[in-house]
Amino acid sequence: MNILELTDNRGNIMYNVAIMGATGAVGQVMLELLAERGFPIGELRLLASARSAGKEVEFEGETHTIGELREDSFANIDLVLASAGGSISRKFAPCAIDAGAVVVDNTSAFRMDPSVPLVVPEINPQDLATHAGIIANPNCSTIIMDVVVWPLYRRSRVERIVVSTYQAISGAGARAMEELESQTREVLDGKGARPREMPHQTAFNLFSHNTQIGAEGYCEEEMKMVCETRKMFHDDDIRITPTCVRVPVMRAHSEAVNLEFEEVVDESEAREILAAAPGVEIVDDVEANHFPMPIEASGKDAVLVGRIRNDISRADGRGIDLFISGDQLRKGAALNAIQIAEELVERDLLKAPVATAGS
Amino acid sequence: MNILELTDNRGNIMYNVAIMGATGAVGQVMLELLAERGFPIGELRLLASARSAGKEVEFEGETHTIGELREDSFANIDLVLASAGGSISRKFAPCAIDAGAVVVDNTSAFRMDPSVPLVVPEINPQDLATHAGIIANPNCSTIIMDVVVWPLYRRSRVERIVVSTYQAISGAGARAMEELESQTREVLDGKGARPREMPHQTAFNLFSHNTQIGAEGYCEEEMKMVCETRKMFHDDDIRITPTCVRVPVMRAHSEAVNLEFEEVVDESEAREILAAAPGVEIVDDVEANHFPMPIEASGKDAVLVGRIRNDISRADGRGIDLFISGDQLRKGAALNAIQIAEELVERDLLKAPVATAGS
Repeated sequence: MNILELTDNRGNIMYNVAIMGATGAVGQVMLELLAERGFPIGELRLLASARSAGKEVEFEGETHTIGELREDSFANIDLVLASAGGSISRKFAPCAIDAGAVVVDNTSAFRMDPSVPLVVPEINPQDLATHAGIIANPNCSTIIMDVVVWPLYRRSRVERIVVSTYQAISGAGARAMEELESQTREVLDGKGARPREMPHQTAFNLFSHNTQIGAEGYCEEEMKMVCETRKMFHDDDIRITPTCVRVPVMRAHSEAVNLEFEEVVDESEAREILAAAPGVEIVDDVEANHFPMPIEASGKDAVLVGRIRNDISRADGRGIDLFISGDQLRKGAALNAIQIAEELVERDLLKAPVATAGS
Repeated sequence: MNILELTDNRGNIMYNVAIMGATGAVGQVMLELLAERGFPIGELRLLASARSAGKEVEFEGETHTIGELREDSFANIDLVLASAGGSISRKFAPCAIDAGAVVVDNTSAFRMDPSVPLVVPEINPQDLATHAGIIANPNCSTIIMDVVVWPLYRRSRVERIVVSTYQAISGAGARAMEELESQTREVLDGKGARPREMPHQTAFNLFSHNTQIGAEGYCEEEMKMVCETRKMFHDDDIRITPTCVRVPVMRAHSEAVNLEFEEVVDESEAREILAAAPGVEIVDDVEANHFPMPIEASGKDAVLVGRIRNDISRADGRGIDLFISGDQLRKGAALNAIQIAEELVERDLLKAPVATAGS
């Protein structure tokens, strides 16, 4: 925090918060959640590219004008919530730190930097203590999987995960969501699809996640699930084979997860563990054939889990299958970032390592 | 075949063909394919429930009136292609056999009957020889997976499969496809979804396959993939854990498949095997990020396979990951049934075991 502490009328400390990428899909949900959760905001500074600067946004009944994101945008800011893309974060996060702020970065820019903690508060909040100005928010597919896998991992180490994702178009941003909507109308009207934001038709179609495929044949999104899970679990030996797929769902990612444990873990025990796990809600009504669905996960904080069953392909009792849906924009992005900020406040870690002249 | 053989003007034998469920999604594609492939049809008899009887259908420029399906509908019929539901097949297949016909049944009614061959012509055509009047066509998700897995299995036995499906709404029939279309319009217009054909919203949503969940926690669709694969591969020990999910795609199922082999199988070897496999087409352009997609698999005979890669979660080289899309109505249903009929003609097996008085 800066030296001049703001307090509300009860004496609670208030924080000056900047949002980078305030007009994006994640930025919009950040604003909703900051209001909903009553984060102690002093000044709110909304920042975006020159293209979006000047636009007006409502927040708690007040109109805020979006400012252009520049190197000198961070004076007197305590906390930056960044979700404007990796290259933007790489450029501006150092400026924010120099100005005395702490950056919670939602992009992939710093996630695998060994000096930057990568945190899901339900998993590894203790890693926040090591921050040097930046805390990275994991990839959405990783968060949604790991918030469910971690409590089971604590019972018995998970040796291997086979995971297939069903990723909503929200993961590609607000304009991709608009494209899914307009393209779906066009296809229903018998016109051909003309993808612009996405490389392939999204309406009534699905395709392998359109990040670059690396030498081993896995795309970047898949490798994020592998590497980020290892970093957060502090387990470089956990083995994961993901297949990431985009589906014509507006919001909330789903995942079919097959887990191999070191020890025997029974379905009923897994169910008990998940029932008690923070950030997780069991939706597993076999009678009614009602399991996690993206339309029900959308707008929810908890990640939904169901289809909890012993893996019939294993005779040794060390396998569990699960099906998960979680709001990609909430727990998969904005909510986790704000939970990190709340945890920083709680642990008195919301201060940059070097106080600068201006603060 | 019946005693009075029909021949065309070149002396080729013609067969009298009845279609049960001619107005359904699969029945419609059967008609397309019978014409497209030039199946040697003498009389074509289209049969459906009383509700659909009297409707007119075009076939090769001629108008056919749909007759009501009754116990006495099969006089002089050589071949029945049945896709009107399991209970209809159970009731009418014996009548068809009594009348001297051979039934290729697309329902689940007889698939696991030990006396009924379950056949994908690319996998186990030899099993046709054992038929006693009925040949079962496997479940669509099973066919699409197994036509790709079988050539690899022949190289090295597959010990275990972890598979997640992305199933098109065509799998639930023509009315479910219409519902996806009309419901999508309603949701785009801001109206709530009111599912009638399907238990849950299909527009911009996905859900666990809505067949009943059994004692072990797997739904019927998933257990079909397990049991039917074992029967066709003649391998009761192959271990499979499927997760079946319906997605808002009109036609063509996709599947993420993780294979564990007995021996080391390298990605390049898997690729060579699949390139030479009948009924399979590789779509695996890493540079262009172009892999199997349901819109490209729709209307195609071949099952598309891509994302062919060594499983990075295994150090022993015994794992391969794949992504598959195949037309659920073609290879997943109508095409496979007609290929069975063609194979029966080829092998001179298109005759019922007992000639009856009427034939």
